[in-house]
Amino acid sequence: MRSPAVSGRLFVVGLGPGDPDWLTPEAARALAQATDLVGYASYLDRVPVRAGQTRHASDNRVEIERARHALALAISGRVVAVVSGGDPGIFAMAAALFEAVDKGEPAWRDLTIEVLPGISAMQAAAARAGAPLGHDFCAISLSDNLKPWTLIEKRLRAAAEGDFVIALYNPASNARPDRIRDAFALLAKHKSGDTSVILARAVGRSDERLEITTLAKADQSRVDMATLVLIGSSATRLIPRTKGRPWVYTPRGAS
Amino acid sequence: MRSPAVSGRLFVVGLGPGDPDWLTPEAARALAQATDLVGYASYLDRVPVRAGQTRHASDNRVEIERARHALALAISGRVVAVVSGGDPGIFAMAAALFEAVDKGEPAWRDLTIEVLPGISAMQAAAARAGAPLGHDFCAISLSDNLKPWTLIEKRLRAAAEGDFVIALYNPASNARPDRIRDAFALLAKHKSGDTSVILARAVGRSDERLEITTLAKADQSRVDMATLVLIGSSATRLIPRTKGRPWVYTPRGAS
Repeated sequence: MRSPAVSGRLFVVGLGPGDPDWLTPEAARALAQATDLVGYASYLDRVPVRAGQTRHASDNRVEIERARHALALAISGRVVAVVSGGDPGIFAMAAALFEAVDKGEPAWRDLTIEVLPGISAMQAAAARAGAPLGHDFCAISLSDNLKPWTLIEKRLRAAAEGDFVIALYNPASNARPDRIRDAFALLAKHKSGDTSVILARAVGRSDERLEITTLAKADQSRVDMATLVLIGSSATRLIPRTKGRPWVYTPRGAS
Repeated sequence: MRSPAVSGRLFVVGLGPGDPDWLTPEAARALAQATDLVGYASYLDRVPVRAGQTRHASDNRVEIERARHALALAISGRVVAVVSGGDPGIFAMAAALFEAVDKGEPAWRDLTIEVLPGISAMQAAAARAGAPLGHDFCAISLSDNLKPWTLIEKRLRAAAEGDFVIALYNPASNARPDRIRDAFALLAKHKSGDTSVILARAVGRSDERLEITTLAKADQSRVDMATLVLIGSSATRLIPRTKGRPWVYTPRGAS
C-alpha cells in the first residue's frame, strides 16, 4: 500500500472527452488514489465523489494558478490529481503544469509528476466520422489568449501548404466568436471549397452532434466552444451510404 | 443480450501503445464481445484468449486484404474486432478499413462500423517526457510505402515553416533505415540545432526507452521501427532536474 502521506506525488490525469467508457484504467486508479483533486469545476464534476478526498475546483481561465496550487499541495505531502479534459498533453493542463514548475519553486523539480494520457477530442471526433485523421495531420488551437493571431495565421497557412488534415481546437469563445470564420476564410484561399469539414460537438456526451459539410458551406454559427473542427486534406474522401451519415476518411497514400 | 448472429457489426479497436493500463473500457468490451478477432499477429498476442472466439492473424503489410477479410466476416453475420495498435484512426487500421469499404462491395456500406479510439504513440511518448505536445503540432508518417518521398519532404518543410512541434511515425524500417536521417537533415536546414528531440521507443512496454537530445545531436542509429520521434518547436523548453531526466514541454503561448 502506498501511504497517502508520501511526499511529492502529482498526477495530471486525462479524463478523455466525456464518456467514462474512454477513461483509461491508469487514470481511474490515479483518481481513486489521490487525496486531493484539482481542476476546472466541470471536469471535477465528472469524477465520482469519494470519502476523504478533498476537491479544489477553480475557474477555467486560471490554469497557472491552478497548477501552482496543485504543486504546493504535492510538495506538502499530498497525492494530487490535476484533472484535465481529453488528453492533458494536448491543449490542456500538462503544459500549464510544467510552465508553473519551470517558473516556480526549485523544490518542485524534485516532485514525482506523472502525466496520464487520455483520448483527445480530435480522436473522438475522427472515430465517429470514420478515419479522417488517417494520414498526416496538424492540430492547431485557435485560442489567441496566449499567442498572437498572426502566429495562428502563419500556422494555418503552413498547414494548408503542406496539405495536412487539420484539427482545430478552441475554435470559438464567448469573447471571440469570429475566429473560426477567419480561419475558414484563410483556409478557403488555399484549399478547395469541396474540402470535407467535420463539425464535432461534445462527442461522447449526451448532447453530441456531428455535422459533415465542406469548406465552402461551413457555417461558423454551428461552431461553439465545445466543437472540434476537422478539415480534410486534398485526399480526404466521403463514402456515401444509403442509410445514415457518410463516412469520411483520408487514405494512407497520396492518391 | 446482443446475439452473436446479428448481421453486420465491425469494431476497429485501438489497443493503445502496449500497456493494458491504457486500454479503454470501451475497447475491452468490444474485444470480449467479438466472435472474431482480426489483426497483425503481434497485436492479437496482446489480447487475452477467450473460449469460442476465432483469431485471424495476418502479416503487417497486408492491411487492405486484412480489412477485406474482416468486412466479409462481418457481412456474414459475425461480430468482428479488427485490432490495431495505438489509435486505429492515427496511422493505423481505420483508414485501411474505410479504403476497403470505399473500393469494395456496396453491401459493406450498410454494415455497422464503429471505430474505438485508443492512446496513440505520440501521446504516450509526450506523457513520459512532460508536455512537448502542449502547443500546435503536426503528425507525419515517414513511411514511403504508399506516398512519394517528395510529399513527405513537402510536409516536413511546411511543418518547419509553421514552427510546429512534429511527431514522426514510422521513422525507420528494415527496408529503409535511412529515412529518419534524411528527415533530420531536412529539418536541420529550417530549425535550430538546439531544438529538443525526443526518441521514445516502445513506450508502455517492457523494453521502453526514452532519450532526450537535440536536432544537431540526434543519432539515427537510435531510431528503429518501434520508435516515435518528437521534435520541438522554437518555443519547446527543457526543465533541468538534479535527479533524473529533464522534463520537456512546449508552453501554451508564443513565448
